[in-house]
Amino acid sequence: MQKLVLLRHGESVWNQENRFTGWTDVDLSPEGFEQASRAGKLLDKHGYNFDAGFTSVLKRSIKTLHFVLEELDHLWIPVTKSWRLNERFYGALQGLNKDETIAKYGEEQVHKWRRDPNEHPPEVTHDDECYPGHDIRYKDLTQREIPVTENLSETMERVLPFWSEVIVKAMRQNQKVIICAHGNSLRALIKYMDLLSDEDVTNLDIPTATPWIYELDEGLNTIRHYYLE
Amino acid sequence: MQKLVLLRHGESVWNQENRFTGWTDVDLSPEGFEQASRAGKLLDKHGYNFDAGFTSVLKRSIKTLHFVLEELDHLWIPVTKSWRLNERFYGALQGLNKDETIAKYGEEQVHKWRRDPNEHPPEVTHDDECYPGHDIRYKDLTQREIPVTENLSETMERVLPFWSEVIVKAMRQNQKVIICAHGNSLRALIKYMDLLSDEDVTNLDIPTATPWIYELDEGLNTIRHYYLE
Repeated sequence: MQKLVLLRHGESVWNQENRFTGWTDVDLSPEGFEQASRAGKLLDKHGYNFDAGFTSVLKRSIKTLHFVLEELDHLWIPVTKSWRLNERFYGALQGLNKDETIAKYGEEQVHKWRRDPNEHPPEVTHDDECYPGHDIRYKDLTQREIPVTENLSETMERVLPFWSEVIVKAMRQNQKVIICAHGNSLRALIKYMDLLSDEDVTNLDIPTATPWIYELDEGLNTIRHYYLE
Repeated sequence: MQKLVLLRHGESVWNQENRFTGWTDVDLSPEGFEQASRAGKLLDKHGYNFDAGFTSVLKRSIKTLHFVLEELDHLWIPVTKSWRLNERFYGALQGLNKDETIAKYGEEQVHKWRRDPNEHPPEVTHDDECYPGHDIRYKDLTQREIPVTENLSETMERVLPFWSEVIVKAMRQNQKVIICAHGNSLRALIKYMDLLSDEDVTNLDIPTATPWIYELDEGLNTIRHYYLE
């Protein structure tokens, strides 16, 4: 039996302000820092340690993982950062307050954008400052890989190659793995691992900085999963 | 012309207590945290940014690099941690206060241990708690690679494969590189890069958290170097 730990980053400044964040690289809130340290202490209390960490290229996840590893006295493990673990790209909604967006587009449409795995938020244009093609951290992505909007299915499509080719490979070498990522990149991963229907995943909500433990058999099939609390 | 930045970690708790540290994984002192942030701000002020970071598996260097990258808003770059960039392994001197060691062994002997590139500090035995074979972070090292003591020449021997095979490779791909490491792993590297004699390196002292800039030509030969201040 092998364990895998999934962790959503601590609360960010924009979670607090109730804004659509996506690939915007906002920092943790003071509460988010606290949550990250608490998650680390909790994992430590339960005897967890890791051989490898994986995270996105967004600081709210990178820092959360850093604080967790600091609490575990495991800052020395290799940490791989990939854009493929980034939050879902929220298109032109990024930066907007969720309540204002509801006032403008109606609750039903906003709920669809947030939760329907096949629904696209409005696209950003290439001259929009939110277009990731302007950010040097994405300079090695092909034009096709740089999103202008994403639904959850598309997030899943770009998460999965990293999962299969990098993370699964580490786990097959018996490495104990922690993935620190985002609400929707984790929902995408869980949808895939647990074969969730579109309807199931619509109702799946992942709290910040709460370790989600997978117990997996030798073939890396799920035995069970639960939150560590 | 290509630039390479070398950085010794900020002051550690044991620098402050004047103890031999070596591979002991002591934390930064409060002043060390400040120094690391200042180094980051200084690099930012001078327009530096990086494509790749390299550091040891010791937290005083890992954290220093983290704070520097945080100041540069470049936490997303890949950071590779290797035991080969660790501080020189100080054998049975690790943990001892430098003044007490001088009182016991005499100033001349201690100066030799600290500065003569061919002088070995006393060895640790395999049952000593300082023997790195007990630490899981070194579990993939061969018995021969795990030190019981090191002189500077031996530190250089284990630094150089990482330099040649990993760091030089990144620089040949035109990546802008920062190496955050330790007084003696950096002295070893500088001895090699600048073809310093044993005597030259004896007098080379590297201040904490002060960026040392190398300007290199296309063949990665040194044009000049200087501290950023």
